[in-house]
Amino acid sequence: MKYPLIVLGFLLFWSATSQAMLVEKQRFEIAEFTTENGKIIAPVQVGWEAYGELNSDKDNVILITHFFSGTSHAAGKYHEDDPAPGYWDAIIGPGKAIDTDRYYVISVDTLVNANVYDPNVITTGPATINPASGQPYGLSFPVVTIGDFVEVQKALLDSLGIEKLHAVIGASMGSFQAIEWATRYPDKVERLVPVIGSAYIDAWAAVRLERWAYPIKQDPAWNQGDYYETGQPQHGLITALSYIIQDAVHPTGFNLRYPAPSTEKALHQDITASLSAWQQLREHAAVRAGFQDANHILYLVRASQLFRAGMGDDWKKSLENITAKTLFMPATGDQLLLPAMSQYSRNVMQQAGKAAEYVEIPGIWGHLDGVVGMAAVAEELTDFLNQ
Amino acid sequence: MKYPLIVLGFLLFWSATSQAMLVEKQRFEIAEFTTENGKIIAPVQVGWEAYGELNSDKDNVILITHFFSGTSHAAGKYHEDDPAPGYWDAIIGPGKAIDTDRYYVISVDTLVNANVYDPNVITTGPATINPASGQPYGLSFPVVTIGDFVEVQKALLDSLGIEKLHAVIGASMGSFQAIEWATRYPDKVERLVPVIGSAYIDAWAAVRLERWAYPIKQDPAWNQGDYYETGQPQHGLITALSYIIQDAVHPTGFNLRYPAPSTEKALHQDITASLSAWQQLREHAAVRAGFQDANHILYLVRASQLFRAGMGDDWKKSLENITAKTLFMPATGDQLLLPAMSQYSRNVMQQAGKAAEYVEIPGIWGHLDGVVGMAAVAEELTDFLNQ
Repeated sequence: MKYPLIVLGFLLFWSATSQAMLVEKQRFEIAEFTTENGKIIAPVQVGWEAYGELNSDKDNVILITHFFSGTSHAAGKYHEDDPAPGYWDAIIGPGKAIDTDRYYVISVDTLVNANVYDPNVITTGPATINPASGQPYGLSFPVVTIGDFVEVQKALLDSLGIEKLHAVIGASMGSFQAIEWATRYPDKVERLVPVIGSAYIDAWAAVRLERWAYPIKQDPAWNQGDYYETGQPQHGLITALSYIIQDAVHPTGFNLRYPAPSTEKALHQDITASLSAWQQLREHAAVRAGFQDANHILYLVRASQLFRAGMGDDWKKSLENITAKTLFMPATGDQLLLPAMSQYSRNVMQQAGKAAEYVEIPGIWGHLDGVVGMAAVAEELTDFLNQ
Repeated sequence: MKYPLIVLGFLLFWSATSQAMLVEKQRFEIAEFTTENGKIIAPVQVGWEAYGELNSDKDNVILITHFFSGTSHAAGKYHEDDPAPGYWDAIIGPGKAIDTDRYYVISVDTLVNANVYDPNVITTGPATINPASGQPYGLSFPVVTIGDFVEVQKALLDSLGIEKLHAVIGASMGSFQAIEWATRYPDKVERLVPVIGSAYIDAWAAVRLERWAYPIKQDPAWNQGDYYETGQPQHGLITALSYIIQDAVHPTGFNLRYPAPSTEKALHQDITASLSAWQQLREHAAVRAGFQDANHILYLVRASQLFRAGMGDDWKKSLENITAKTLFMPATGDQLLLPAMSQYSRNVMQQAGKAAEYVEIPGIWGHLDGVVGMAAVAEELTDFLNQ
């Protein structure tokens, strides 16, 4: 169970009301991968899955790039009796906004994916055994970037003979990958949809992300990332995931999910007593922590912090490369990647003469509406993909 | 130096352009104080200061209640050569919005004030020597509430023979005290101005506050609050203050204050390398930490988490007690105590038939605009006080 329970609630609802599309996890390997920063990882393995059929011209492909806490499981189920389908099942499937009767939709686990211990995730990162040493990489794993995530995806697409993408669509950290695709390979990307996204990370967002890494690094059990024999820094990891959940959820949704009793007598009597909402949040985070690796969180934080479109000194200039038709879809209540960041990214593109549309996702969940609230903007998304 | 440097910049500007009003810190003692939760603190001492002259009817009094990181130093200077005046000097003084030619303005250090080691602060809290033991209270100090802060202020006003308040005005945690005054003593409060405030703390805000306490509690040097011989949990305290600063500042202001270089090469090469914006923030927090006590932060967090107007089970019902004319002044970009919280508080009052006005403070600093941006709403404040 790799989603917040609130998400799970939505997914169960969808699950009950729609026929399951069965999907299969596949494995892709690159024998020797050179990172953007000049380090070699040998081999790289990632998981991927696809929905719909690749046409003979191989020109009906939509790539979905996943968010920080996500995986390649964007839609469908592995088994009829799975409790929930992939995270965007509301908009991916036969006759849905991203219509698998028309498109071949493909989704890939990133490097350093958080959910290492989810049996349906295949990734390469610090928790992976380094064949050279027979031990987990730990912090000897190189820093990887959004550009590296894109290059792994490109290698997979190359191996399948896919040269054009009808669209690249991704939420949050997935929007960084989608934008990087359109910036780096403008001839391959016809449409770009950054959902709850941004073309840059600023100091404010980078520090906010650093606050996710901090409790892991402060946990003595982290031991400079060398904990694979002694056990995970559970306390730090659960704290990090608690922060991630809160930062991704607007107060309105948060207060529904973790209601506070009007008076908590113990808190009045004992300074060491614990707030019930904090306890609920931690219990929920603990469930997710069972599937995640603490070092992988640190690497995802770093990859996100370093994102600037084009991965160079001038993200605004890099956006000038884009030829894809673009649709920014921020969530109105997002307090993590603010609608203002989508607006700024869009304005920079428009000033460079690019076509860039803008539709806000309504809802009470804030950033999370880009995952659970997409049904509200399905029509706009369909229209855009048909352009 | 107990203000963020950004605040200090503003204060220095004001300082250079206005004649200093000289003020003096005074000491108020209550021999035996019984807290709302039934514990005795003997004695309680707090500092206070006043601006303007008390008239013979003692009916020209405005009480200023301070914010979480603040002190009673709301205006003026202690010495002509002080680098900065009190935090609301832009709106308190002769001819200013809170006009000391007309009003006697009084401001009191709270219990468990954060700035214990500021020589101009007088407070009672865990860092205070317990006369019964000859040792600092540490965590044996009782949990105190916003109601207790109000009762200490009331005891001071009683000692001065002041029975009516022309207004109570406070920012952030000061708004909680102001609202509690108007709820608890409706006959004494003629006007109420909650600035960047709320009549309640919800689960979302309480958890956000818990995140300020967490790094202190996780620091081994905290030692369950027993560190007065071994030294403060500096690392945890600095982290807590870093979070407080970020949460109080809107991204626009934050990015101006802590700009991120477009590329930081070390971050690409070394997962343990530190983000420059994070370092800048911590250095700034370290300056503030020199004046603050870690346990006091925990007690302020708790006092804030427990706030509901009336301090009982139904804050909405308690607001029905209020007879004061009320003006809510949230900051447009506030991401800590959202304008929505002021709006909700106001709506509840209006539904109970109360007069409650609403003016937003514009600016790029978010929550902090309620401290540094008040000049922008000085006219509205003056008009309200003249009603």
